[in-house]
Amino acid sequence: MGADRTLVFPNRPAIVSAASIAGPKEGQGPLGEKFDVVLEEDLLGQISWEMAESEMLRRTVELCCQKGGIAVANVQALLSGDLNNQIIASTFAARALGTPFLGLYGACSTFVEALILGAMLVDGGYRENAMAAACSHFCTAERQFRNPLELGTQRPPSAQWTATAAGAVLLARRDGAQVRVVNGTLGRVVDRKIRDANHMGAVMAPAVCDTICAHFAQTGTDAGDYDRVVTGDLGTIGRELLLELLRERGVDMPKEKLMDCGASLYYDWQDAHAGGSGAGCIAATTCARLLDEVREGAKQRLLLVGSGALLSWTSAQQGESIPGIAFAATLEGK
Amino acid sequence: MGADRTLVFPNRPAIVSAASIAGPKEGQGPLGEKFDVVLEEDLLGQISWEMAESEMLRRTVELCCQKGGIAVANVQALLSGDLNNQIIASTFAARALGTPFLGLYGACSTFVEALILGAMLVDGGYRENAMAAACSHFCTAERQFRNPLELGTQRPPSAQWTATAAGAVLLARRDGAQVRVVNGTLGRVVDRKIRDANHMGAVMAPAVCDTICAHFAQTGTDAGDYDRVVTGDLGTIGRELLLELLRERGVDMPKEKLMDCGASLYYDWQDAHAGGSGAGCIAATTCARLLDEVREGAKQRLLLVGSGALLSWTSAQQGESIPGIAFAATLEGK
Repeated sequence: MGADRTLVFPNRPAIVSAASIAGPKEGQGPLGEKFDVVLEEDLLGQISWEMAESEMLRRTVELCCQKGGIAVANVQALLSGDLNNQIIASTFAARALGTPFLGLYGACSTFVEALILGAMLVDGGYRENAMAAACSHFCTAERQFRNPLELGTQRPPSAQWTATAAGAVLLARRDGAQVRVVNGTLGRVVDRKIRDANHMGAVMAPAVCDTICAHFAQTGTDAGDYDRVVTGDLGTIGRELLLELLRERGVDMPKEKLMDCGASLYYDWQDAHAGGSGAGCIAATTCARLLDEVREGAKQRLLLVGSGALLSWTSAQQGESIPGIAFAATLEGK
Repeated sequence: MGADRTLVFPNRPAIVSAASIAGPKEGQGPLGEKFDVVLEEDLLGQISWEMAESEMLRRTVELCCQKGGIAVANVQALLSGDLNNQIIASTFAARALGTPFLGLYGACSTFVEALILGAMLVDGGYRENAMAAACSHFCTAERQFRNPLELGTQRPPSAQWTATAAGAVLLARRDGAQVRVVNGTLGRVVDRKIRDANHMGAVMAPAVCDTICAHFAQTGTDAGDYDRVVTGDLGTIGRELLLELLRERGVDMPKEKLMDCGASLYYDWQDAHAGGSGAGCIAATTCARLLDEVREGAKQRLLLVGSGALLSWTSAQQGESIPGIAFAATLEGK
């Protein structure tokens, strides 16, 4: 299993508030009623998709502050990232917000990477609060990683739909009934030599399997100890692959216990092919739906596994395969 | 000054070992004798500059492990980033190394961002050790941010030379005489509306000024409390701008106390214009020179300020200015 990868947070930092904003397509999906805001159009009055994505993140952070009862100026650290080169959605949002900023890059795993580092910042008493956030936008991701939308390129069935969505949680040490981050397991870069940018589930499933196995081994738990294991954006194909990989490793994972945010973000009629993806997918789903379920006691212990495909057009054009990574965090409602 | 931005590390994590590798041009500069390895050619036998940069980082991390007396497999967290889109130099190095990996993006400030987060990981007892690293490569940066080298584009005098270099430090809680990381100050995204990708010193100087002022205010120190204040890669022009900005803010900073790694990396005859830059600049300079000076007692208390220009060609083409950010960490020899 290699080096120990699980960090324990003895002070059990609380998720004080959470906010999510999603695009029109995501608003028509199963979580439509649950997002704090569903955008009427996905340009948000900006001059570009990139600036729209940034503005969506800025609004999400601001809303999360409002719901948590603190001023933006009092956020002690914003940890965020996105899929854009140089994570510009996050950096320009941080510019507008003026908060201390820690830029992260973990592709679609970024939200859980931010959650772990943010939880550590407050658990250790290094910060009184920290905001963990991530976002993605269908139009910026397609342009950067695949084809400009204007080409109207047909998408293969294994392709996933990058969610236009942002999620943010405010972390602090707080008594009382709260959803808490009790531990986090770091990811390793895992590469099974997939080269297809339209098959992200296959890229990420091995990394997710690796992290879940490490997490179970190092915390002495198994699937039975969690009400639900939630993956970020494996999509319908990646989810099947993960179940198969776990079976091969001899890890029991009842199918009904495994929920994938990407596979749950759109209705079939929405034509999202293998499901949703993007750094905003697990971020917004966690904030819109999962935290409520933990808080309301339906699913009181949840393993949240964010996974990222570290796709780069530069290295892809040089013949390299696409590596994956996954971070896991345990959330508890009691 | 806004929210408090300084994290204190009561256990004073130690820098157990450090390693640096630099390119041929950097090897001909003032630090040539001090780097652990000077590359004979900057492609390292790889098929691309990007893979060469990644290989340089991998070797640096491996060397740092060797010097620190631990196996790569026992590194509990590698925190790293670089200037490439999707930080591919770091992710592919992490793939080869197999260590738990936290990907960061702070452009040229990444090394100090990694140092702060790594110090926190071991200070809080969350990890037994952590490796903070960063790298850059002249050829990858020019291609991505400016022009392909093959064009032979002439560079204006304000341009800086992205260093081909990597640096890594191994952090752990350890007794005895060591260089220690005692605190860290987070950066904010600061933008003074510079739009010139060949004028990075002007982009970063305001962010450095902002972070130094915050650091002094929040730690109750001033320049007199440090043997040296070291900035990352402001270059000769940015260094002058910083001195001017600090004067405007009423902050005393004796000129001879302020060292800039970028302005110290090349001899004048090397034609690096305004000086060195790149995420590897402060990383390799710290590992090759500064830690020794702190350890040997010449400069026992040092404020290390890494700064990044968050340049993106996408947002630049959309008319956006280039924001900057800076992180600071205090290193002590006693």
